[in-house]
Parts: sequence; structure tokens; C-alpha cells
Amino acid sequence: MKFSSSLLVAASVATLATAAGSTSKPKNYIFFLPDGYGPASETFARDFANYKSNNTNMLPVDELAIGYVRTFATDTLVTDSAAAATAYACGKKTYNGAIGVDDNYKPLGTILEAAKLDGFMTGLVVTSRITHASPAGFATHTYFRDLESDIADQLVGYTHPLGRVVDVMMGGGRCFFLPQSDEESCREDDVDLWSIAHDKYNWTMTTEREKFDELDNGLAEDIPLPFAFIPNLDHMMYEVDRESSLEPSLTEMAITTLNLFDRLTKDSDKGFFLFIEASRIDHAGHAHDPIGHVHDILEYNRAMQAIVQWINDGHSDTALLSGADHECGGLTMGVPDYAWYPEVLDVARNTAGIYAQQFETFNETANATETDKMKYLKEQIFEAYGIKNATKEEIEGYFTADSAEIYLGEVLSARAGINWSTLGHTAVDITLFGHGINTHNMIGSWENGEVGQFMANQLGLNVANVTKILQANESFVQAIGPDAEGKKLIKRYRLQHDHEHLHEGAFHKH
Amino acid sequence: MKFSSSLLVAASVATLATAAGSTSKPKNYIFFLPDGYGPASETFARDFANYKSNNTNMLPVDELAIGYVRTFATDTLVTDSAAAATAYACGKKTYNGAIGVDDNYKPLGTILEAAKLDGFMTGLVVTSRITHASPAGFATHTYFRDLESDIADQLVGYTHPLGRVVDVMMGGGRCFFLPQSDEESCREDDVDLWSIAHDKYNWTMTTEREKFDELDNGLAEDIPLPFAFIPNLDHMMYEVDRESSLEPSLTEMAITTLNLFDRLTKDSDKGFFLFIEASRIDHAGHAHDPIGHVHDILEYNRAMQAIVQWINDGHSDTALLSGADHECGGLTMGVPDYAWYPEVLDVARNTAGIYAQQFETFNETANATETDKMKYLKEQIFEAYGIKNATKEEIEGYFTADSAEIYLGEVLSARAGINWSTLGHTAVDITLFGHGINTHNMIGSWENGEVGQFMANQLGLNVANVTKILQANESFVQAIGPDAEGKKLIKRYRLQHDHEHLHEGAFHKH
Ligand SMILES: [Zn+2]
Ligand SMILES: [Zn+2]
Ligand SMILES: [Zn+2]
Ligand SMILES: [Zn+2]
Repeated sequence: MKFSSSLLVAASVATLATAAGSTSKPKNYIFFLPDGYGPASETFARDFANYKSNNTNMLPVDELAIGYVRTFATDTLVTDSAAAATAYACGKKTYNGAIGVDDNYKPLGTILEAAKLDGFMTGLVVTSRITHASPAGFATHTYFRDLESDIADQLVGYTHPLGRVVDVMMGGGRCFFLPQSDEESCREDDVDLWSIAHDKYNWTMTTEREKFDELDNGLAEDIPLPFAFIPNLDHMMYEVDRESSLEPSLTEMAITTLNLFDRLTKDSDKGFFLFIEASRIDHAGHAHDPIGHVHDILEYNRAMQAIVQWINDGHSDTALLSGADHECGGLTMGVPDYAWYPEVLDVARNTAGIYAQQFETFNETANATETDKMKYLKEQIFEAYGIKNATKEEIEGYFTADSAEIYLGEVLSARAGINWSTLGHTAVDITLFGHGINTHNMIGSWENGEVGQFMANQLGLNVANVTKILQANESFVQAIGPDAEGKKLIKRYRLQHDHEHLHEGAFHKH
Repeated sequence: MKFSSSLLVAASVATLATAAGSTSKPKNYIFFLPDGYGPASETFARDFANYKSNNTNMLPVDELAIGYVRTFATDTLVTDSAAAATAYACGKKTYNGAIGVDDNYKPLGTILEAAKLDGFMTGLVVTSRITHASPAGFATHTYFRDLESDIADQLVGYTHPLGRVVDVMMGGGRCFFLPQSDEESCREDDVDLWSIAHDKYNWTMTTEREKFDELDNGLAEDIPLPFAFIPNLDHMMYEVDRESSLEPSLTEMAITTLNLFDRLTKDSDKGFFLFIEASRIDHAGHAHDPIGHVHDILEYNRAMQAIVQWINDGHSDTALLSGADHECGGLTMGVPDYAWYPEVLDVARNTAGIYAQQFETFNETANATETDKMKYLKEQIFEAYGIKNATKEEIEGYFTADSAEIYLGEVLSARAGINWSTLGHTAVDITLFGHGINTHNMIGSWENGEVGQFMANQLGLNVANVTKILQANESFVQAIGPDAEGKKLIKRYRLQHDHEHLHEGAFHKH
């Protein structure tokens, strides 16, 4: 873990000092959402990083902390990603499950849409499916987050009333772009969105890392926009599991997109709005997997550090705000005995899900005896994941657990002295980070909607006008609202315990 | 719940604006420690206050948030109150259990001692025993927090090598001032510290609220200094249990002391250093009692609001910083199902401990039948505490629980959708609040020791010099260090699960 902390301290202080009293505004805005990153997760990852480096450093984002965000949704005190993304994007709180719509299912203009209409470049760079709630909330509208085919349709411009509003998309979720006849599809219709995007809307649709890498080299006039890099059917891999020959890191995707936008807007008086998400900090929280959680958090920190460096390095007209949508998993450290042991997390080289899959594969080996299997589980799975000298009880529990993945995570967590209280989110305020021009104005405590309002105001955007245009489109309003069945769907979602995790696990069965 | 929020917003913003670039320093410093107040506790109390008032206001302290504090101790990643208080007071991290001493048991000068030596007035105003770890860390020195008789001896000046360093003390813990011959004593010796303090060190030692009230009226020359108001043998009451005829609120104690110091230092170029603690937010966290927790947090907020008002109202030479020592209880809200219900906490009119005591009394009634007792438990205890229509299982669990108090708290918590993961503390960073001159310099993330260093620097104090004086006193160094038995005591403390709670419960048995 090599973070150049001293550099960041200097930069932050300088920002506060020189920008005080300034009335100039940024040309470009980056909003970076670390999904499911609560206050405990920051201490958690810092303690791990410091165990590794044997010091007491700050994390890069520690240096950028400026305030807190109050995250509750309109229907409950614990928000989901959809309601929170909508609040950040539209400046208005809504109900859990809502994508760019208000409590009455009416569309709300987003900061990204307003930027696009005003001549800015726009981008969504995430590690979840690109159709997942957080990116969806910035560029699409529907009464329920699970309607990811509809979200994909809007993302490419196919059914979006404003036409195409996104210039660059990077993330997973290709299955929602394939017609149901394709065995890799998650759609329930015959729309071949991948081809439609390419043919009708001129998208460069690619799954290849080489095509992504070429973005860094091409001349401005060669850049094949709009550009979608969607290498995976489902989410991108967790950082610790990532195969770098197939997938760039979030840091690489973020910086490549920034450089691209910088070249494209250099001679314009309009800049860009870029939404970036470290999406899977949250997924590891739902899965109670400290390994996926800590490594995706550290990658978020690397990306934030790289962006701050990029801003300081000749892009002082770009401002950065970053805040989570909510906490995830109810993480606490020091359970039960005033000590937690980050060293326990320094063994695993993959997430629990990979180890569980690996055992599943071995378990299906025809000629493996019961003894072989138990030995394999203990030595190749438990030991490799960091559960040294697993007890008989720990091993046996694996076979009766609802989820092998979660079981492994919880056993390792217990040994590390950390606890997860829920498979869902919790209500605690999250930390707001900022760097660059005028971000010191966001020191203090804010509603999530106020953060969105601030950014739109800084770019001089009229989001209310976008709302007006969208709501005047009666057929669109009709199309994205719930029928009786849809209202039941939302109600069920609201009542369902730990639904988000179930939702994650269920996605492949269409 | 009537907080004049708009006032505070205006005040905070004004502070940031006008103080920027200023090089002047405060004459007076207040450090206000809300013990065991983690980030989740702030959301928790705000959601409850907003349920009561049917709005979405901020809490008073929300308006004052400027940063956060990294709290780990030198021996574990989860601190106790002793190590944390020492870090704040002395500017240096130490081991859990340490009171004003470093890892080698050597005394460290405190900001309060440095202030006293430099001619400032000094005070400790708390709701725990005045001999408890947090106030002790600011004015005394010993290798282990449980040596509260020794701490009391130093507090009055009896065994403190610098003589008396405290001018005003308010809090509980009178039992440590009484000789063992007194049946109310917690001491294991014959020292009548109450009389010694009065006779040899000129303290006004009082248990009477009337004497406290007189502080507000007397002329400066009539104020009987040094002054100790110690109404209770043990801690002060939780705010929700408080009998106001016997005990003032923390807000009253804080403001009375501020007015007193203000009158006494008006014509001096030296001001005061005041340590205030909302001590029992922590105790309710250890007890998993959401009722004690929420009401002591709201009282902390009232006190903070009153202090900000006091500063704004003609005392702009006073600065305020406030930060917890650590989180307590591993509180999370939204367990298990994305909703938490603050309304469940709006029934109880006392803490769980009071209800448990009440049942104990009824249970010992000679002629009550089993049926009477069950009926009483259900109707007068469970219902009154907020557990409506208690189930058979909930009632039966009461009789097998290790602690009736904790059991009640946990049943109510489960119904409210909140979870406590530990009977001890957790590692999460805590929030730093500030108001007044130069406190904007503390925006961001800090080690707890850095907060102490900043305050000492702001008052122009030389804490290192106090350390030098203390460490040069060989017999004192000898007296406060551990012998072989003492080292075992510290080791046992370090290994003991949930020790702080046990410690709380055990105090009366000497
Ligand atoms: Zn989320
Ligand atoms: Zn989630
Ligand atoms: Zn404490
Ligand atoms: Zn405690």
C-alpha cells in the first residue's frame, strides 16, 4: 500500500486556503460514489492498510473529508441505492427502489441530463452492472430499480425521451443488452440492444480491454464516441479477484475517461460531468466478506488519490465530491473484546465467493471421497481464505449454511474481531469528501439531495427545467410508472428482509 | 425538542468566514467529550428527535461538525476511555487503562495542568464519577484507571506533585472521598479525603443543589473556590432519570461554570480551560439501553447548543472543540430489514436499570403470587419501558438473562430495529465538532492526540514542560507506576472481554 499522503495533505490545505472567498466556478464536476461505504468501513480499511505497512498513516480519502451526509429515504430511515442515487442526481429525496422518479413516480431531471442538454460531456464509470441502481439514478427513470432492461434501453438512448444523454459508459451488465434468444441474456424480450445501440445510436459497444486501452492513445478526432466498455455479463470483478488482462481497474477507467473528456472539451467553454462508482464495496458488505470489502475500499482510495493528483496536475477547473449512498452490513470492529485483528485478513487472495465456487467444483469431482473433500475444504478453502486450523464446528457449519459465501465471510470476520449486524444497509450518516474549487463550501452536515443541488449549481445547470420537459412527456410518464402489479412489486420490495442481497444473488435467473 | 437550528447555522458559517486567516487566539478553551458517542449514535438521536417533532431537522451538533478523530490506543485498535482521555489531554497516545501516563507508565503533563501552572482557571464538569477515566486523564496520573481513590487524592491536591490543579469539580463519585469506616465509602483506606480537601486545601465540598445554585448569584468575591459539587456516591443520574431537585442538568452545570469562570477571569489576561463530559452516553451503550443513550445524547446536544449561544453572546474569545473518545456498543440501525422505528423509544420514562430495580422491589414483596409477579412484569415493566404486548418468550427470557437491565434494553432495541454488537467499544472514527475562533483549522481527519496538541497550542501552553516537571519527581513516578501485581492487573484488563461493562457493575463492592 503506497499512498503519498503528505502530498495530499498539502493539496487539501492549499485548496481551502486559496479558494476561500473565490467566486469562480468549476468547468467540470466529478461525483464519485463509494457504494455502501460507511464510517466504520473507513477505519476498517485504514487499520488493514496500516497493518500491512506497519505505520499509522491516513487513507487518501481521510485527507479529503469535509462533512457528513444524511441519507434517509422518504419511506424509511434506511435508504437503498436507488433512492440515494436519485437524491444525489436529482436533488430530491424519494422512496426506496425509485430510479430518477419522485414519490408519485413522476420523472425528475438529473444533473447528468441537465449537463448533456447544456452541452457538457457526460459519463458513467462503475464496477457494478451499468444498469444497476446507482448509475441508473443519474441517467434514467423508472418506478423500480429491478427493471434493468428498461434502464439499459434508456441508457443507450433507445427509449429515453431526451435521446442519448450519456457519452461514455463503463461497467458490467452486458446481459441486459442481449435478446432473450441469447443464452447469456437477462432480458425477457427480443430486443437486441447491443446492435441497436451500435446501428441506430452510433455507439461503439465493446467488451475488449484492448479497445479500452486504445482510448488513451487515439487522437481526439479518432475517439469513437459514444463509447461503451461493458466486458462482463454481470458486475465487474471485485478488485481482489480481477483479471487485469480482461478488466482495467476502477482507477484506470476513471483516469482514462478524465483524459478523454479533457481532450474533447479542451476548446469548449462547456466541460463534463462524470459519475464514478466503486460499486462493489457494497456487495461485499451484503455478503459479509471482509476481503472483497477491504480491497474494493483500497481501490476506491487509489482512484480518489489519482483523481486528486489529476486535478492538481493542470486541471484545477475540475471539482470532485465523493460520498457514499449509505452504510452496508452494519459493520463494527472490536467484537467482542476491544481488539480487532486486521492481520487475519492478510491471507486471502480472493473473495469468499471465489473460494466457495472452487469448493463447489471440487465437490463435484466424481472420484473424490468424503475424506478428500473435508481435507480439501480445510486446507484449500478455509486455510487459503485465512481461517487457520479451522475447528470441526467451523467446518461442519459450512454444509448447513444458507450461503457458503456468507458463511466463510462470517467465520473469518469473527476471527478478525469484526461483526456484521445485517444483510442490508444501516442508517448511519456517511462521510463527504471533496477536493477542488469551492468544495470547502460543503463543510458540515447535508441532506443527500443538497449535495446534488450544490453540484448542479456549481455547473450552472437548470435541473428543474429537465424535470419540466420530462414530466410534459405524457407517454413517457405513463411508461415508467407502475401498474397495479408494479405497485405490488414496490410494496414487496419495501417489506422484504435483506432484499438487496437476495436481489444480488437472484439476478441470473430470468 | 426545541432546537433553534437556524441560529446555529448562521453562527457556524459566520465563524468560518470571519475567522479565516485570523492569527488571533482564544483566551479560553472548552473541550466537551461525549463519551461513547459514535457516528451511528448521532443519526440515532436525530431520527428520534425528528420523530418527536415530525420534521427533518439537524441536531445542534450536526451544525458544528468539522472533522473526525482516529482513536486507536497503542496496545489495541479499540481504545478505552482512559487511553483516549490521556491522548486528548496530553497530546500523546497510550495504552488502555492508562491515566495521564505513557506506555512506560511515566507521567505526561496535561493541558489542564499546563493551564493551571500558567495562571488559567481550570474545571472538570462531568456526569460520571469525577474519579472516572475521562476527567481523571485531564488532571491526574496513575498506571491504572481503577485506582479511583488515588485519583481522588490527586484531584483535590492531596497527592498531586503540582499541588491542586483543579479549581472547580462537578460530578458524581463521592464514595471515593469517604474513609472505609463510612458505609458509603468505596475506599480501602482510612483517608477522609472530604475533610482533608476542606481543611487542608480549602475546598468547598458540597452535595447540595442549593449551594450549586448559589454560584449563579454570588458576587465574584463571594465565590467559594476551589469548589466541588459532588452530590452522588456513584455517577450522576442518567438525564431521563434525573431528579432535578437534587441534580442540575449537564447544561446547567456547564453554563454555571462558564459564567463563574467568566466573572473570575474578566480582568485577567489569562482565561480558563474547562473539560466537560456527557459521560453516560457511554454507560447506556454498554448497557444496550436505547433510552438512556438517546436522552443523554439529547442533553449533550442541548449543552452544546447552550455553549455555542454563550460564546456568540459576548464571549467570542472562547473556543469550543468536542469529540468522543470512542464509539460504544457497536450500535447499528436498520436491523434486520432496512427500517428502524424511533417511535418504539417514545414510551419509556426511565432507563432500563430503573425498571429492573422496580421489578426487583416488587419481586421481594412477601405476599405477591407468581401470577401477580408475571402480571406486574408485563404491565408495569415491559409495557412502561415500551415493549408492548410482550410475548411469552420475551417475558420468560427476563428470568434467565445475565442482566435484567441489558435484557430489557436488547428486547426494546430489537423492536426498534437497532442492534448492539458488543458490550464494549468499537474502533470506528468519531466526529469532531467545533465552534469559535480558529476551530476551522481542525477541519479534516486527526489523531486524538493532535486535537489535544492543537488546543494547548491555541492557549499558548507548554505541556512538554509539565511532563518534564512531573517526570523529574522520582518519588511520584515511583508511586504511580505498577508493581508486579499492578502489571498483572493491566494485563488482565487487556484480556478481559467486555471489561468496561463489568467494571461499571462492580464498582460498589470494595
Ligand atoms: Zn448502495
Ligand atoms: Zn447495497
Ligand atoms: Zn469512554
Ligand atoms: Zn465505555
